[in-house]
Amino acid sequence: METISTKEPDLDKAGFRLLTLDNPVFCCYLFWTSILILKMLMMSILTAMQRIGTKTFANPEDLKMRTTDEVKFNDPNVERVRRAHRNDMENILPLLIMTLIYIATGPNATLARILFRIAAVSRIVHTLVYAFRPVPQPTRAITFFTTFFITAYMAFYVSIRTITYI
Amino acid sequence: METISTKEPDLDKAGFRLLTLDNPVFCCYLFWTSILILKMLMMSILTAMQRIGTKTFANPEDLKMRTTDEVKFNDPNVERVRRAHRNDMENILPLLIMTLIYIATGPNATLARILFRIAAVSRIVHTLVYAFRPVPQPTRAITFFTTFFITAYMAFYVSIRTITYI
Amino acid sequence: METISTKEPDLDKAGFRLLTLDNPVFCCYLFWTSILILKMLMMSILTAMQRIGTKTFANPEDLKMRTTDEVKFNDPNVERVRRAHRNDMENILPLLIMTLIYIATGPNATLARILFRIAAVSRIVHTLVYAFRPVPQPTRAITFFTTFFITAYMAFYVSIRTITYI
Repeated sequence: METISTKEPDLDKAGFRLLTLDNPVFCCYLFWTSILILKMLMMSILTAMQRIGTKTFANPEDLKMRTTDEVKFNDPNVERVRRAHRNDMENILPLLIMTLIYIATGPNATLARILFRIAAVSRIVHTLVYAFRPVPQPTRAITFFTTFFITAYMAFYVSIRTITYI
Repeated sequence: METISTKEPDLDKAGFRLLTLDNPVFCCYLFWTSILILKMLMMSILTAMQRIGTKTFANPEDLKMRTTDEVKFNDPNVERVRRAHRNDMENILPLLIMTLIYIATGPNATLARILFRIAAVSRIVHTLVYAFRPVPQPTRAITFFTTFFITAYMAFYVSIRTITYI
Repeated sequence: METISTKEPDLDKAGFRLLTLDNPVFCCYLFWTSILILKMLMMSILTAMQRIGTKTFANPEDLKMRTTDEVKFNDPNVERVRRAHRNDMENILPLLIMTLIYIATGPNATLARILFRIAAVSRIVHTLVYAFRPVPQPTRAITFFTTFFITAYMAFYVSIRTITYI
């Protein structure tokens, strides 16, 4: 008589479950990715608030019913938020793609979760000290490089594991 | 005698099929993501056309065989297209990543498809009224916030479902 | 008596294995995506080096302990690297998302690998001739359009395959 095993398969071997809710690492990724995307969306609102507060509108059609009638560029408060937003695109979007494929390779679950949590929190602090309340360096540099090196570590890890597919 | 069920498993429970062609929601995502990426690629062509039309080249090596011999910045037509392109990066890329992981959580299939279709069409209209033919506000603002709130909704939904993995 | 087949399922039909290490196309994607993300991270370092070399700092808090006491913009060397970095965001990030979902549709494995390798190498050459050592056009234009048309091909392929889900 045949016996059909009902034992849960090993997650590290069952690659097709890595990007599902069955994988706690992926669930952790889902949570922090959602938070980081909400944070990025907030940057648009912050830019709009700075534009309205400083009357700095880049498009003629945005001037209607405003108390100003000229397009304006290079307001330092607007530009600071825009630099912070651009920095997010340069770093958060690669982090999100890199972490997704890092998880798809079935890394150590504890390490993967710790790394992504640290990377996510660092980017939130980066925004606070860049766009909300500038503080002396090297605070911003530290938060920047924390996420930077975590993304780089994941990229090294994945590229070395898959180097034979070059 | 054992019976092996041949019934199709419930898609909401079979997480490993959510990111495959078996899932109609994912197929809808595949279609509109491809369209949005083609739309983003078009922005580069549009920028190049504006640069050639207004003779606004940012790099000395781009001047060869042109009817101009000076690099130039800040042409309003070029800058308008570049702002629209940047706005795409700020909003479409987070939308695509957010929707992908939203689908991986197995949401209501009808709702997911309606939301993504509206978000995608809004971004196409956003480009038309920003880069092609500027129209009075709040047209552009409405298209912007439609996609904005759909992305935010997905992020809230996913983060609340996975909050225990914080 | 029942026979349970132990034959490996056909990869093209077993969609749930397409985004796992079982799929050589996905392994190839993992390798080159990691390389491209490392390349993008390098652009931040290159920008920082140019900022320090030319004393061009955009934020007052970055001036501490530098040999300059004024924020500065528009240094041509810094701006060249920033344009190259922005060009990466405009093209590499859509390429990575597009290729991921292209692979999820189970395309011809040989073609998919060749296309992604060419697209990845083109972007590396693009950076070399844009940010490191400018060379006469159309070198940069050729590298740009190589990746551009590969991304567009994938988008056409996927959108046509899924057009019934519009």
